Amino acid sequence: MDIAKGLIAIGAGLAVMTGMMTGIGEGFVAGKAVEAIGRNPEAEGKIRSTMILGIALSETCAIYGLLVAILLIFAF
Amino acid sequence: MDIAKGLIAIGAGLAVMTGMMTGIGEGFVAGKAVEAIGRNPEAEGKIRSTMILGIALSETCAIYGLLVAILLIFAF
Amino acid sequence: MDIAKGLIAIGAGLAVMTGMMTGIGEGFVAGKAVEAIGRNPEAEGKIRSTMILGIALSETCAIYGLLVAILLIFAF
Amino acid sequence: MDIAKGLIAIGAGLAVMTGMMTGIGEGFVAGKAVEAIGRNPEAEGKIRSTMILGIALSETCAIYGLLVAILLIFAF
Amino acid sequence: MDIAKGLIAIGAGLAVMTGMMTGIGEGFVAGKAVEAIGRNPEAEGKIRSTMILGIALSETCAIYGLLVAILLIFAF
Repeated sequence: MDIAKGLIAIGAGLAVMTGMMTGIGEGFVAGKAVEAIGRNPEAEGKIRSTMILGIALSETCAIYGLLVAILLIFAF
Repeated sequence: MDIAKGLIAIGAGLAVMTGMMTGIGEGFVAGKAVEAIGRNPEAEGKIRSTMILGIALSETCAIYGLLVAILLIFAF
Repeated sequence: MDIAKGLIAIGAGLAVMTGMMTGIGEGFVAGKAVEAIGRNPEAEGKIRSTMILGIALSETCAIYGLLVAILLIFAF
Repeated sequence: MDIAKGLIAIGAGLAVMTGMMTGIGEGFVAGKAVEAIGRNPEAEGKIRSTMILGIALSETCAIYGLLVAILLIFAF
Repeated sequence: MDIAKGLIAIGAGLAVMTGMMTGIGEGFVAGKAVEAIGRNPEAEGKIRSTMILGIALSETCAIYGLLVAILLIFAF
């Protein structure tokens, strides 16, 4: 095994770390959703669907990192 | 044992660190849920189910990191 | 495989990390949107469309990183 | 002992650091639970059970890091 | 391929990382815009146009990083 392979592994590890802050961002969305439902339980449907939409949009950033990590592992 | 293997181990360690901020994000969700239940205990069911959904969605980011770490350890 | 290739992989991993903070920024947008809908459910349409616009504009930063990572992997 | 073994130790150390922010996230849950019980002592049972559930769900992130660290130490 | 080329790739990766914090800054703009529309939906037009202007101005930082990364990849 040569050193280049190890360096590619480090590159893949760094790439997937892109999703690190997405975890806290999505937690913020869900936390605010939970708080809003506690205050206004009648709006639960609207709140929950906007929460899911917002988390899905944020998720893209983490997926970019995963994509590059997978590319580096299997296609580089 | 060659150096490349050690570098792959560092890559795997970096990869799993993706989940680092998910812990704080999920804690924010649960903290807000607990706060909302204290204010409005009747909405407990709605709050708790949205909390579990939000945490499950955030968890995906940590799982991406775990996936890449496992790939680097066993399949690279 | 030569060392330069491994270094390019590290460069690609660093490049895609640009999107790291976008995850938290977009989560902030969605969290504030969810909070605003809880307070004023009638304005849901306006809030949601501005949320999507704001997230789309923030997304560009993550896309710059993805673009450079892809360029480094396939065109360098 | 060769350098690769030392690099694997660094990888394992990085891996277990995943749990670093889980400590602050879970502390936020418990702090909010204590605050909510102080405001509304009658809801203690509901608050406490949601707190335990939330902390258990956050804990998973730290466990992923522990798992990868153990794998690197014993199975790599 | 020589090591210098790999080092240039790392330089390009670092360059585009300039935009990392822009993601969080633009998310803050959009989040506050969404909050303001929830409070005062009649002002939607003014809020949204100022949000777009603010994000466009913040975006320049990320574009500087992208520019240098592109220069390093193609013109160095």
